[in-house]
Amino acid sequence: MNTAETIGSLGENESLKRTISRLNASEHALVGPGDDSAVISAPDGRFVVTTDTMIEGHDFRLDWSTGYDLGWKAVASNIADVAAMGAAPTALVVAVNAPASTEIHWLESFADGLRDACERLAPGCGVVGGDLAASEQIMISVAAHGSLEGREPVLRSGAQVGDIVAVAGTLGRAAAGLALLQSANRDAISAYDALVDTQRRPQPPITSGVDAAAAGATSMLDLSDGLAKDAARIAKASGVTIQIDRLQLQGFEAVLEEAARAIEASEFDWVIGGGEDHSLLATFPSDAVIPRAFKPIGVVLPVGHAPVMLGANPMPEYGWDSVRD
Amino acid sequence: MNTAETIGSLGENESLKRTISRLNASEHALVGPGDDSAVISAPDGRFVVTTDTMIEGHDFRLDWSTGYDLGWKAVASNIADVAAMGAAPTALVVAVNAPASTEIHWLESFADGLRDACERLAPGCGVVGGDLAASEQIMISVAAHGSLEGREPVLRSGAQVGDIVAVAGTLGRAAAGLALLQSANRDAISAYDALVDTQRRPQPPITSGVDAAAAGATSMLDLSDGLAKDAARIAKASGVTIQIDRLQLQGFEAVLEEAARAIEASEFDWVIGGGEDHSLLATFPSDAVIPRAFKPIGVVLPVGHAPVMLGANPMPEYGWDSVRD
Repeated sequence: MNTAETIGSLGENESLKRTISRLNASEHALVGPGDDSAVISAPDGRFVVTTDTMIEGHDFRLDWSTGYDLGWKAVASNIADVAAMGAAPTALVVAVNAPASTEIHWLESFADGLRDACERLAPGCGVVGGDLAASEQIMISVAAHGSLEGREPVLRSGAQVGDIVAVAGTLGRAAAGLALLQSANRDAISAYDALVDTQRRPQPPITSGVDAAAAGATSMLDLSDGLAKDAARIAKASGVTIQIDRLQLQGFEAVLEEAARAIEASEFDWVIGGGEDHSLLATFPSDAVIPRAFKPIGVVLPVGHAPVMLGANPMPEYGWDSVRD
Repeated sequence: MNTAETIGSLGENESLKRTISRLNASEHALVGPGDDSAVISAPDGRFVVTTDTMIEGHDFRLDWSTGYDLGWKAVASNIADVAAMGAAPTALVVAVNAPASTEIHWLESFADGLRDACERLAPGCGVVGGDLAASEQIMISVAAHGSLEGREPVLRSGAQVGDIVAVAGTLGRAAAGLALLQSANRDAISAYDALVDTQRRPQPPITSGVDAAAAGATSMLDLSDGLAKDAARIAKASGVTIQIDRLQLQGFEAVLEEAARAIEASEFDWVIGGGEDHSLLATFPSDAVIPRAFKPIGVVLPVGHAPVMLGANPMPEYGWDSVRD
C-alpha cells in the first residue's frame, strides 16, 4: 500500500502545480495565475469585490463535506455577493490553509469543486490566483470580483416605499440540510439527500443578479444570514419597513415540511432563519417587469416600529452571527 | 476592574462597526464597505489582484507582534505583490478570523495598523471590505488590488540577456529580526530593535514598483521568500540565468554583521535567504535609467546550468516554503 501523498510531503510548489492544473481559466484574465498578481479586465472602468471565509469546525465539518463540496461552496457563497450588486462574476483569488498532513487528493478535489462551480454557476469566471499555507484548521478565504457591464450597482439602500419585495432561489433548504446532518438520523439524511446537497453545494441564482439589475431593482442582497436578518439589513439601509406576506412563504415551507417532521424541526424557522442557500432578495418598483426567477414575497412600507414585519407582526431578528455561533 | 470586551461578547456587527470606523477610506472606492461588495475604480479598464494569508503560529506569534504590527504587515506584504507588477495599490479586502475570546482592543489595533500602513506606504489605498469570523487560530487573509495606470504589467518572465539586476529596499533585515526574536536574547533584541521592527512592520518600497515600470523594467517580483529562491523564479520564468555579484551584497551584509555576531548567526544567510523585507527585485535594460531606489546587484546571462549564480558558483536554492516550514 502506498503512503498517501500530503501537501506537506509535496511542498507548496508541487501542491500548487497539481491544483492549478485542474482549474478553468477566467475569460477575463489578461495575466492569470503564476506571477505576483493577476491582471483582470474591467471593461467599464470599475470592478466589484467581496470576500468571505469558511473555517473548519465553524462553517463546515470534514465528515460532512468533501473537498469538492467545499470548493464548490466557497465559489457559490462568494459570487452570490457579486451577483447581489447586479454584477457578473469574473475572477476569484483563493487562499487555502490546511494542515501539512492533508492529502493532496483533498486539495485536488477542492480545485475540481472550484472549477465546476465556476463553470456551472458563472461561466467565464475562474480562479486567477491563490495562496497555500499550513495551519491547524482548514480555512478557505476567497475574494470574488465582478463586472457591472456599465450598469449602476444595486445597493442595499435603494428600496422605496411601494416597491415589491421578491426572492430568487430557494429558502431554507440549506438550513434543512444542516439540521438533517446535525440530527445524525441516517434514514432522514438519506430520504432528504437533495436538501443535504443544497447545504453542501448551494446553487445560488447567480445570473438572476444581472437580470434584476437590468429590470431596475432598487435594492438587493445575498441571503447569507437568513431572510429575517437580511431583510432587516435592506430595511435599515433604506430607511423603510419590509413587510413579508406569510402566505407567499408557504411554497418554500411546503417542500421542507416532510423533512422537518422527520427530525422534529420547524420548516418555518428554516425558511426565515436559514441563509446558506445564498438566494437573492431584491426590491423592484411596482411597475417593473420582475424577472421570472424572482417570486414576490412582500412590499416596502414607510419606516415603522420594526424593520421587518411578517404580516401585521414584527419579525424577530434572528439568524447567523459568525463570531458568536 | 472591568471585564475586557471580546469580539465574542460584542458579536460580529458591533465588532465590525468599531473596527471599520478606524480605517481610512480608499480614494478609489465608488462604493465602500457595508454592502455585499465594494465597487472600485479601474480607470484603464484593468485591475491587478493578489492574495496572501498570515497564520498564527506559522507566520507570526502573538507574543512577538501586536495587533497593530499584524495589520501593518498584512497590508505591506500584500501591496508589495501589487507594486511588483508595476501597479499602484488602490483597495484591499481583509478577512480576519480570531478566537471569540480575542479582545476588541486587539482588533482595533489591527485596524489602526491597516490604516497607517495604507497611509504611509500607499497613500490613497484603503480597506474596502472584509469579513470577521471565529476560529481557533488568528488568520489574516488579504486580497490587494492595484491600477496599472495605462502601463503594461511587469511580469517575472521578461528578463533579457544583458539586463541589469537590481533591488529596491533592504535585504535580510526582517530575517535578522526574526532570528533575534527566536534567540530570546533580550540584550540583542534591545540593541538591534530596528531589525526587529522590520520583521514586525516591514517597509517595502511600494512606490518604486511604479518607478521601475516607468523606467522600462523587463521583469520584477516581490522578494517574499528570499533573494536566492525569488531570483530563481525570474530566471526560470524568463529562461535565463541570473548572476549576482557578491561584492554588491556587501552593503546589505555590513549593516547586519554586528547583530549576526551577537547571536552567532550568518548575515550572509539572512541577505540571500530572508524574504520578509518584501523588497523588489527587477531587471532593467542595460541602457535604462535605473530609478535611484534600485541598487544594481547583478546581470542577466544566457541560461546556464543553474538558474542563479553567485559570482562563478551556483546559488543554492533555499528559502521559505509555506507548507513545509
